[in-house]
Amino acid sequence: MTVIALDAMGGDRAPQAVVEGAIAAARNGIEVALVGDEAVLTPLLTRFGGAPSGLRIVHAADAIEMGEHAALEARTRHDSSIYVGVQLVKTGEAEAFVSAGNTGAVFAIALLSLGRLRGIERPALGVLLPLPNGPALLLDGGANAEVRLTHLAQFAHLGVAYMRAVMGVAEPTVGLLNIGEEPTKGTHLAIEVHAVLATSGLRFIGNVEGRDVFAHRADVVVTDGFTGNVVLKTAEGVIDVLFGELRHLASGSLRDRLGAWLLRPSLRAIADRSDYRRYGAVPLLGIDGAVFVAHGRSDARAIESAVRTAATAIERGMLPALAESTTHLRTGATEA
Amino acid sequence: MTVIALDAMGGDRAPQAVVEGAIAAARNGIEVALVGDEAVLTPLLTRFGGAPSGLRIVHAADAIEMGEHAALEARTRHDSSIYVGVQLVKTGEAEAFVSAGNTGAVFAIALLSLGRLRGIERPALGVLLPLPNGPALLLDGGANAEVRLTHLAQFAHLGVAYMRAVMGVAEPTVGLLNIGEEPTKGTHLAIEVHAVLATSGLRFIGNVEGRDVFAHRADVVVTDGFTGNVVLKTAEGVIDVLFGELRHLASGSLRDRLGAWLLRPSLRAIADRSDYRRYGAVPLLGIDGAVFVAHGRSDARAIESAVRTAATAIERGMLPALAESTTHLRTGATEA
Repeated sequence: MTVIALDAMGGDRAPQAVVEGAIAAARNGIEVALVGDEAVLTPLLTRFGGAPSGLRIVHAADAIEMGEHAALEARTRHDSSIYVGVQLVKTGEAEAFVSAGNTGAVFAIALLSLGRLRGIERPALGVLLPLPNGPALLLDGGANAEVRLTHLAQFAHLGVAYMRAVMGVAEPTVGLLNIGEEPTKGTHLAIEVHAVLATSGLRFIGNVEGRDVFAHRADVVVTDGFTGNVVLKTAEGVIDVLFGELRHLASGSLRDRLGAWLLRPSLRAIADRSDYRRYGAVPLLGIDGAVFVAHGRSDARAIESAVRTAATAIERGMLPALAESTTHLRTGATEA
Repeated sequence: MTVIALDAMGGDRAPQAVVEGAIAAARNGIEVALVGDEAVLTPLLTRFGGAPSGLRIVHAADAIEMGEHAALEARTRHDSSIYVGVQLVKTGEAEAFVSAGNTGAVFAIALLSLGRLRGIERPALGVLLPLPNGPALLLDGGANAEVRLTHLAQFAHLGVAYMRAVMGVAEPTVGLLNIGEEPTKGTHLAIEVHAVLATSGLRFIGNVEGRDVFAHRADVVVTDGFTGNVVLKTAEGVIDVLFGELRHLASGSLRDRLGAWLLRPSLRAIADRSDYRRYGAVPLLGIDGAVFVAHGRSDARAIESAVRTAATAIERGMLPALAESTTHLRTGATEA
């Protein structure tokens, strides 16, 4: 049975939403080790009707706050829920760790405690984009603001292995996020990466632009963590603006109000489909262990979905697939 | 009277759509110098009912194609519509040049023929984002894939001058596009730029994320041309996906079909508002002359809007405002 360690203290709505989500996941047959302050969690569990079988508390007295500074000092705080949760993966007591807390802290502690897969210099956040015709994977979603040639090439291999093993895409296509289709477009780094990916043995379709990402031109979109993060937050911002305008119609003319009322169930379905909560958690690909981060704004449903995402990835053999596909990669060729 | 030189041969729908747009602009009182092959344009004008007063043809035998390679060799093709059009601005026969053609070629020829404003090392594409609560300016929208510290600082001054003079925003706020709010977030370059903008005398509000751009947290958003271009194309892609899903509803259940029919006028209004054609053309800010590029997919309406955008910017004193605000800028401090 797959055991998922869950950071009870991470996220804007922790610990309540996390406890609720953990209970829902446990009721659906996933074993959850809820990591956090026992004095806080025990009464919460009681309030929600007691812990179902399959859910247990692992005590961690400390909790790491959000913010850059907290991430930097996180490695020294061995009583924190993130540190304790990652150790459960290290010792094999849990198969994966999930946190909606400080992504930087999760990244730093996972890297320190679990290390990297062989062939990988920089782990990346692999973000599944919920597109109408199936998910595409964007990486790096924000773990590495600055990257080098070999890092980007490694991201491509990690992404392909994940899409193949976990999402069941037989031969995932790979695109390089750039500002034009021609191989000579973009930064010097982009031009070099294009050349490397073209001879990587992967199913490389060349450069893809911002538009193409959302038209699902590639199953795996490779980019640095700065650009990747900007893409994700831009998409969120545009979706917010458009749904804001649609909501506005529901208080407009009689015609608009009636139309909005009729379309409401379908609009809600579209909103749900384009919602980050659909996939709940994104893997830190390249860590020698299964670690997932959930959105900081996760509610109980998102937490449950995050735990399920992690459990599914484990059951489908994510980690062995990643390890196998990256062992032979060239590293360090462009280290300064 | 403001004279706008218009590239008749540029854009996916040239020359027809450009000729139609030029006629519409001239009928609305803007003088247009339509630059292109006389043998092609004269019969087209006849087909559309003849040239209105205020519209004349300026002959240019050559036309530069799309694509990176064409942009590189464009500077040597002195009979091209882009080259001839830019010369009209240089000699003072036109106040501004507008093209929906090869942006790289327009940029290269404008830079070569007109030069830069004093204090500016790299001109930038200033793209107005049509947001529900008024436009925000993103720059660089794609002219410079790689930039240095001083370039980004100069973009901020150009953007503020444009928003103040042309868009009538008294004290425009400036944000630096980044992947977190803290001044220590992002690339080394972003951290340095943050420090420079904080002491620039501009109304700098700090880092803004992709979400914030579309929530209009800043009037002017500063970024490199790679990231800026990715933001714009991501926004286009997300809008396409969502409107594609809405269109899908119009052929769904009876309830959805009726709702979609009722909401159709309002949805169309929202689509129009979020449409690049609303502003028609984006200025190349930092060139010592008024040069605008329109979207390659521009139809007649978009061309007319582009010509109007250029004429309005000229009438509001864009160029003197830009020149005045940038003369004293520090340049070259980080040149390698």
